Amino acid sequence: MAKEKKVEQITDMEVDFAQWFTDVCKKAELIDYSSIKGLFVYRPYGYAIWENMQHILDAAFKKCGVQNVYMPMLIPESLLQKEKDHVEGFAPECAWVTTGGSEELEERYCVRPTSETLFCEHFKNVIQSHRDLPMCYNQWCSVLRWEKSSRPFLRHREFLWQEGHTMHATAQEAEAFTQKILNLYADFCEDVLAMPVTRGQKTEKEKFNGAEATYAIECMMHDRKALQAGTSHYFGDGFARAFDITFANKENRLVNPFQTSWGVSTRLIGGIIMTHGDNNGLVLPPKVAPIQIVVVPVAQHKPGVIEGAQALCERLAAAGYRVKIDTSDNSMGWKCAQYEMKGVPLRLEMGPRDLENGQCVLVRRDNGEKSFVALSELEQKAGELLQAVHDGLFEKAKRNLEEHTFAASTLEEAKAIQEEKGGFIKTMWCGDLSCELAMKEKAGMSSRCIPFRQEQLGETCACCGKPAKKMVIWGVAY
Amino acid sequence: MAKEKKVEQITDMEVDFAQWFTDVCKKAELIDYSSIKGLFVYRPYGYAIWENMQHILDAAFKKCGVQNVYMPMLIPESLLQKEKDHVEGFAPECAWVTTGGSEELEERYCVRPTSETLFCEHFKNVIQSHRDLPMCYNQWCSVLRWEKSSRPFLRHREFLWQEGHTMHATAQEAEAFTQKILNLYADFCEDVLAMPVTRGQKTEKEKFNGAEATYAIECMMHDRKALQAGTSHYFGDGFARAFDITFANKENRLVNPFQTSWGVSTRLIGGIIMTHGDNNGLVLPPKVAPIQIVVVPVAQHKPGVIEGAQALCERLAAAGYRVKIDTSDNSMGWKCAQYEMKGVPLRLEMGPRDLENGQCVLVRRDNGEKSFVALSELEQKAGELLQAVHDGLFEKAKRNLEEHTFAASTLEEAKAIQEEKGGFIKTMWCGDLSCELAMKEKAGMSSRCIPFRQEQLGETCACCGKPAKKMVIWGVAY
Repeated sequence: MAKEKKVEQITDMEVDFAQWFTDVCKKAELIDYSSIKGLFVYRPYGYAIWENMQHILDAAFKKCGVQNVYMPMLIPESLLQKEKDHVEGFAPECAWVTTGGSEELEERYCVRPTSETLFCEHFKNVIQSHRDLPMCYNQWCSVLRWEKSSRPFLRHREFLWQEGHTMHATAQEAEAFTQKILNLYADFCEDVLAMPVTRGQKTEKEKFNGAEATYAIECMMHDRKALQAGTSHYFGDGFARAFDITFANKENRLVNPFQTSWGVSTRLIGGIIMTHGDNNGLVLPPKVAPIQIVVVPVAQHKPGVIEGAQALCERLAAAGYRVKIDTSDNSMGWKCAQYEMKGVPLRLEMGPRDLENGQCVLVRRDNGEKSFVALSELEQKAGELLQAVHDGLFEKAKRNLEEHTFAASTLEEAKAIQEEKGGFIKTMWCGDLSCELAMKEKAGMSSRCIPFRQEQLGETCACCGKPAKKMVIWGVAY
Repeated sequence: MAKEKKVEQITDMEVDFAQWFTDVCKKAELIDYSSIKGLFVYRPYGYAIWENMQHILDAAFKKCGVQNVYMPMLIPESLLQKEKDHVEGFAPECAWVTTGGSEELEERYCVRPTSETLFCEHFKNVIQSHRDLPMCYNQWCSVLRWEKSSRPFLRHREFLWQEGHTMHATAQEAEAFTQKILNLYADFCEDVLAMPVTRGQKTEKEKFNGAEATYAIECMMHDRKALQAGTSHYFGDGFARAFDITFANKENRLVNPFQTSWGVSTRLIGGIIMTHGDNNGLVLPPKVAPIQIVVVPVAQHKPGVIEGAQALCERLAAAGYRVKIDTSDNSMGWKCAQYEMKGVPLRLEMGPRDLENGQCVLVRRDNGEKSFVALSELEQKAGELLQAVHDGLFEKAKRNLEEHTFAASTLEEAKAIQEEKGGFIKTMWCGDLSCELAMKEKAGMSSRCIPFRQEQLGETCACCGKPAKKMVIWGVAY
């Protein structure tokens, strides 16, 4: 056994972005592979990021009047089939339970790929009157989708997520709630994860199976590919009619309620890695970092150093920061590389001279900047620097987004830009599926969204030249 | 539609205890049935109790150095089979996934009934050196066990739980950790859920499949049946050997680590219902009650009443209590019955005269006691009364336990007591399986545990008359 572990090298992202990503997932100890393809182990450090996201999102949902519930993980095939579009979309990727104990089941059950059908079955039992509405539920769980390919965080066969499901008395209220949650997701990505987003509506082709409208937030990764980071769906009363869910309205007539669903998943962790990470490893946005500040004593064998560093660690913890001290006998170089790999936003260094001078050094993970900090100002300065890391990450990501968003007026131009520079390409669009398919086939791009912030780039569709209806953003997506 | 909902009657527990239990689960809106037998919907009120338990337990686990992770929900059959005793115990109640998407799987996967095998597979990947130990992991998830019968909270085919899994360098350390967690569970039951427990070791017959020793806490329900409320298992190095998990010890020799696992589940909610509930419904221990205090304005149409009540509600919320105000147009009688059904520990009533006198009334759910409280003392008095409810519940449950625990010196005597009075029956035992089976067959009781607090009731086994080794507690169990 080697006395000292080496922090292993990772592939440079410029050399092989996909390999860089996988290296970060493994070396930062976020994930482990299991013996089933596409099912991953969320290790403590990776899971802690998700827990931090959960706490913040859960509190935000509760402010919107959302309550948590837990639905069964299995869906009878007959229940899944009640809504036609929905089952068409999901059946091909369901995993089916066919045996319970020693007996063959009479009907097979799929492990939930999403839970609209289960929520509808329950809503039918508990919604009677307009007084029961709105009914706003959410669950934190895992879902299973038997996809062919898989990558850590980006495409799991089993992944952790939250799925919100709400029922409303009117279409307007449901539609407004759908957008309220989309904006909640967008704010969360920007204010918490430092990931700038583009908000918009999905095209008919890209919307959720069974939905009337799907709204999404799209983020741009380092490699200029798009990541769909969250979706919010408006269902109208389609499921409600299919499941015969009714309520007595104020006029005492039985009518169908209007429905939404919405979700974000651990895919967001993939987004964080590919938005903020660098060739030294992970870079975590401070608000979800499991360790916000790591305290590393310098020349820790010298008298008083460990005690001094420990005291600072305790002060920072008492001030509410998530902090860790490393007094192991690993070298200073190893420790620095290790916590850079793990993306800890701030490193606090303190040695014998700092102790004498009543100061310490705070080093930012995002840009390596060092600040000498008087110990009397430690708590305040730490907070400022964490905010500076957040702002720095957001600005950098926003620059990447802005510098790689282009307008094009023809399919050929869009294709040329994508091949040369990558990124998001805005064009006008007539609204026809055939043009959307042409963009995919000829330029390799899917429609990411019809952004809420429309621009009038021209009068005609970039693909067919007919009159344009909307501006669309195209890209190569994860 | 009726203008006002009635709070529906529930069956008296003396008439039909099982029906009373089911009525409470449904009428207190804890649970709903799904279309698959044994899979239940945890409704917001039921799930919120579980969330409160989670927060308290999770913090306690983290103080013991435990980190949360998430393992896959599926276990390949070959992986489950690696530990012989373990698979024998669980295979008969596994649900099997045999189809993924449109393809038949080459190997079938079971939905986890418990995750020892998955944790071991991961431990093998990440444990190398004694520096990696102890490795203390926990996950919050659901598991599936395809049992024949089912009852809300007590026996689900799918239930929510936490499962802790730890690896240690020495047998002593692992054994000590097993007991540390058992004591954590016991303290949680008593200090948080107000459920007195008996701590002890399971017999060979009753221990977990694959464990060397299983420790358990047993509670007594209203109907004097036993509920196993939590278990903690010591595995020795059995799984580690089966899975070839090794670490380099301080002498740089490769050896196997020693393992524990431990869990509690939403079954605890069943325990709360059957320990504290009464013929008016649920009675919740204040520390996990989703609503600790419900504010009910009296004669709320009178000027200032709703505003006054609202102000008290806000004061209590600001002081950290979980509080709700009901200003609906339902009658006072309906509201009182409704919040009694839901087991809210304290009801605050405030009417016009209270407003004038600067006071309100606090009513305890457990015994109906009313206290007039000066508004200047509200926060403090509310805290005292919540503690009084907790203490009252605990004392009542403890009396039930003590008054229905009996010593017997023969099997016949034990049987007679069980038939006449029910409860826990203590006898001396020789340690032989045949005597344990005789007690089951002839007196209908299983061994609940070999309590840590042994008493010397006599010299001979109650079943066979041979020299006794231990005192055992017997009972009829859920």
